[in-house]
Amino acid sequence: IAASSSTPSFPLPPPTSTPTQVLDPDKKTPDSWLPRDPRLIRLTGVHPFNVEAPLTDLFNEGFLTSPELFYVRNHGYVPNCEDEDVLNWEFSIEGMVEHPIAMTLRDLLDQYEQRTYPITLVCAGNRRKEQNIVRKTKGFSWGAAGVSTALFTGVPLGELIHRAKPKRGARYLCMEGADKLPNGCYGTSVKLNWATDPNKGMMLAHAMNGEMLRPDHGKPLRVVIPGQIGGRSVKWLKRIVITSEPSDNWYHIYDNRVLPTMVSPEEAANNSTWWKDERYAIYDLSTNSAIAQPAHDQQLCLVGSEPVYRVRGYAYGGGGRRVTRVEITLDKGKTWRLANIDYAEDRYREARRQNLCGGVLDLWDHEASFCWCFWNLDISLEELGQSSDIFVRAMDESMNIQPRDMYWSVLGMMNNPWYRVTITKENDYLRFEHPTQPALLPGGWMERVKNAGGNLANGYWGEQIGGEEVPEPVTEAAAAE
Amino acid sequence: IAASSSTPSFPLPPPTSTPTQVLDPDKKTPDSWLPRDPRLIRLTGVHPFNVEAPLTDLFNEGFLTSPELFYVRNHGYVPNCEDEDVLNWEFSIEGMVEHPIAMTLRDLLDQYEQRTYPITLVCAGNRRKEQNIVRKTKGFSWGAAGVSTALFTGVPLGELIHRAKPKRGARYLCMEGADKLPNGCYGTSVKLNWATDPNKGMMLAHAMNGEMLRPDHGKPLRVVIPGQIGGRSVKWLKRIVITSEPSDNWYHIYDNRVLPTMVSPEEAANNSTWWKDERYAIYDLSTNSAIAQPAHDQQLCLVGSEPVYRVRGYAYGGGGRRVTRVEITLDKGKTWRLANIDYAEDRYREARRQNLCGGVLDLWDHEASFCWCFWNLDISLEELGQSSDIFVRAMDESMNIQPRDMYWSVLGMMNNPWYRVTITKENDYLRFEHPTQPALLPGGWMERVKNAGGNLANGYWGEQIGGEEVPEPVTEAAAAE
Repeated sequence: IAASSSTPSFPLPPPTSTPTQVLDPDKKTPDSWLPRDPRLIRLTGVHPFNVEAPLTDLFNEGFLTSPELFYVRNHGYVPNCEDEDVLNWEFSIEGMVEHPIAMTLRDLLDQYEQRTYPITLVCAGNRRKEQNIVRKTKGFSWGAAGVSTALFTGVPLGELIHRAKPKRGARYLCMEGADKLPNGCYGTSVKLNWATDPNKGMMLAHAMNGEMLRPDHGKPLRVVIPGQIGGRSVKWLKRIVITSEPSDNWYHIYDNRVLPTMVSPEEAANNSTWWKDERYAIYDLSTNSAIAQPAHDQQLCLVGSEPVYRVRGYAYGGGGRRVTRVEITLDKGKTWRLANIDYAEDRYREARRQNLCGGVLDLWDHEASFCWCFWNLDISLEELGQSSDIFVRAMDESMNIQPRDMYWSVLGMMNNPWYRVTITKENDYLRFEHPTQPALLPGGWMERVKNAGGNLANGYWGEQIGGEEVPEPVTEAAAAE
Repeated sequence: IAASSSTPSFPLPPPTSTPTQVLDPDKKTPDSWLPRDPRLIRLTGVHPFNVEAPLTDLFNEGFLTSPELFYVRNHGYVPNCEDEDVLNWEFSIEGMVEHPIAMTLRDLLDQYEQRTYPITLVCAGNRRKEQNIVRKTKGFSWGAAGVSTALFTGVPLGELIHRAKPKRGARYLCMEGADKLPNGCYGTSVKLNWATDPNKGMMLAHAMNGEMLRPDHGKPLRVVIPGQIGGRSVKWLKRIVITSEPSDNWYHIYDNRVLPTMVSPEEAANNSTWWKDERYAIYDLSTNSAIAQPAHDQQLCLVGSEPVYRVRGYAYGGGGRRVTRVEITLDKGKTWRLANIDYAEDRYREARRQNLCGGVLDLWDHEASFCWCFWNLDISLEELGQSSDIFVRAMDESMNIQPRDMYWSVLGMMNNPWYRVTITKENDYLRFEHPTQPALLPGGWMERVKNAGGNLANGYWGEQIGGEEVPEPVTEAAAAE
């Protein structure tokens, strides 16, 4: 894939195969023409298609995710753009601009230098299942695999915006996709001067890991907004409108928000002013991390195993802010150890200018970190055996650290408290439990603690505090699900 | 001050008077020529001059701070630039640039349009006294008034950098002041592409609230870097050097860092690799807030007072990220209420283009929030009387929320856990205590709790947990001070 004949030092896409078979569940849906990977876990029943890969499968693919395991968040049916129509795909840039643009994907390829960037996308709902177990939110149950990384190829959005020349007073960039939904097409907006800021890295992409975007990922054209929640990266892009106000699209207003924690589902349903307050809209991702190894339900034999076990996982920051430390505690936060971090994204930065996946790779002056990183820490089996849990937390370059406790909110988004894996000693084995399993899959210590009458909202993971013999009363919040 | 004849809707500087008297403590120091305000609290003995205003005085001045109450962080003596030499002050932009620049302040005034921006500066040590009480750090004891706001007038840094034209490979902008210190002049660096990013708002300033910079604030020329810690805003600017590596100035390496929490003072002293790891350097401020009213030691009579009391304070975010919510709890975080926020900075944004303080004010397209905001919440006396403490926490637009617990580190910087004011009922009065008082001033609940044998690091503000009768043992960390 790389133009160089020598092996590049940066990660190349993992082996991929385009699914060829339409799966049974899809056959009765509007997506019945669309083959998909059977490993994906469906989070909203059969349709629309909202999926994540099993966390271990995702992690084992490495830094880059294959398109078939890349998470998907669809709001309705997938617009079908046949291969022969791809180059004729039309889109426009209009609104408060001096020079409105109407062009095709062919024009975009012909008239602009194509660039390739590694970018991690994350759904705002990543890890939401944990919130749903504490108290039911108005969102479906993502596990910790609502995150994926690919090499995206296309054109920096700022180049097109400069050509369109926004007028004085223009402050927002609204985007609309081709999907027709009950509440109109999917649309949202970002601030206009982010779109023209090279440090923000926004782009129009038509390829992913060197191949044409697949239908679930926006074929043939997608806005890709690194460092922000996936919901801003509009798929099947048809229209960009420059405006003085944020998007009034239904999905912009009633989705992708973190309302204040005291706003109940009832209050949110009855009072639309909460939704119309742009302060609560989510743009940047928040700092987050998860443990991938040990996996959920993994067992580790204390007899005959290596004396040291390598705990591993991922972390990411928001807004291009780099994860600068990842810390592990085995004693519920009393003391912390520093994990090793591998920022594979840096290896693209260090590479000489070259062609990659049909675009120019030249990132030496891109200071932002738009990808996940992997971390690891060796811990002795003895210490693991003496501990009841492993927690991980990350901090970004702005010293934003994952909070100890969950910030519950109506949509259950941006869930990022310390990620906890419990350790249970069973004869000669240690058994590990993650907080949850995605969708309706059973399992995880949160469910177990809750079923045993523990109050997950007691600020101590539902465990008894300080030697108390009586569990905390189960509050309405913990019992609501 | 404003060019308009009508009263502007945005805040104008508070009444000011330039101190005329050299204070006794300064008379035996190299700053013996420099009159100062006697209200300022000295944090490092007599010299160098490091001061904050009493929190109530600072807060009562309102959104803008007078130069005489604006906090000061000096590393040594103040360079003396006489009024008649101001215009001839020379500075340079050199290093990895095509067109090195050597110019005077006169040139800067003559050749560039002057702009005025409201900017809050914050010392990285703000609220450090709290860290010092938990465990002694290598830094002096700021209270919560290491934060001040002014209208700065000067030239966007990016305009000069574009003129100098950095070469390929240039990644950092190093700055040096005129102060001569034991370890060389004060110097530090930021990323070069931040300096050319209009959204970052970096500038060279020569005036503050419409008057020439005063000596303690960098007369005659200062870099002002909004949204980042004050330590990056180099005073008495002499030299900008464009480089491929971060500054190797002693103060860049051994100051303004948050080392990982497990690095002890001894480890930090013995192992310089901790300091040379650029990941731990602080740039953006972190989200923070404090309560100003009730003030420390304030008493509130339950008889005959208004039935409702207005709690008030400040909050700020980092990197231009806006504070989007401020939350108050009266039950240690079990439930939260939403405070009202006043973002006075927005009123400059809403103003038409005009001259202000000798520069053009025209902020309609400046989306970043570089100033503090004020918040307030009315709480009934009855509720206050039933509570043992008031906590405040802020969240920024990236959903970064102040942590519950302190992240202790060797330099004690960026301290931003929930700000707690305790309530004690004494007969018909409620008495309020802030966490600490600055410098060596006694008082505050942290000192009281610690003196009573409480372990401030027990994750529960040194209080007994869950009905325990026995206080937690005093650990080495809590006893170390």
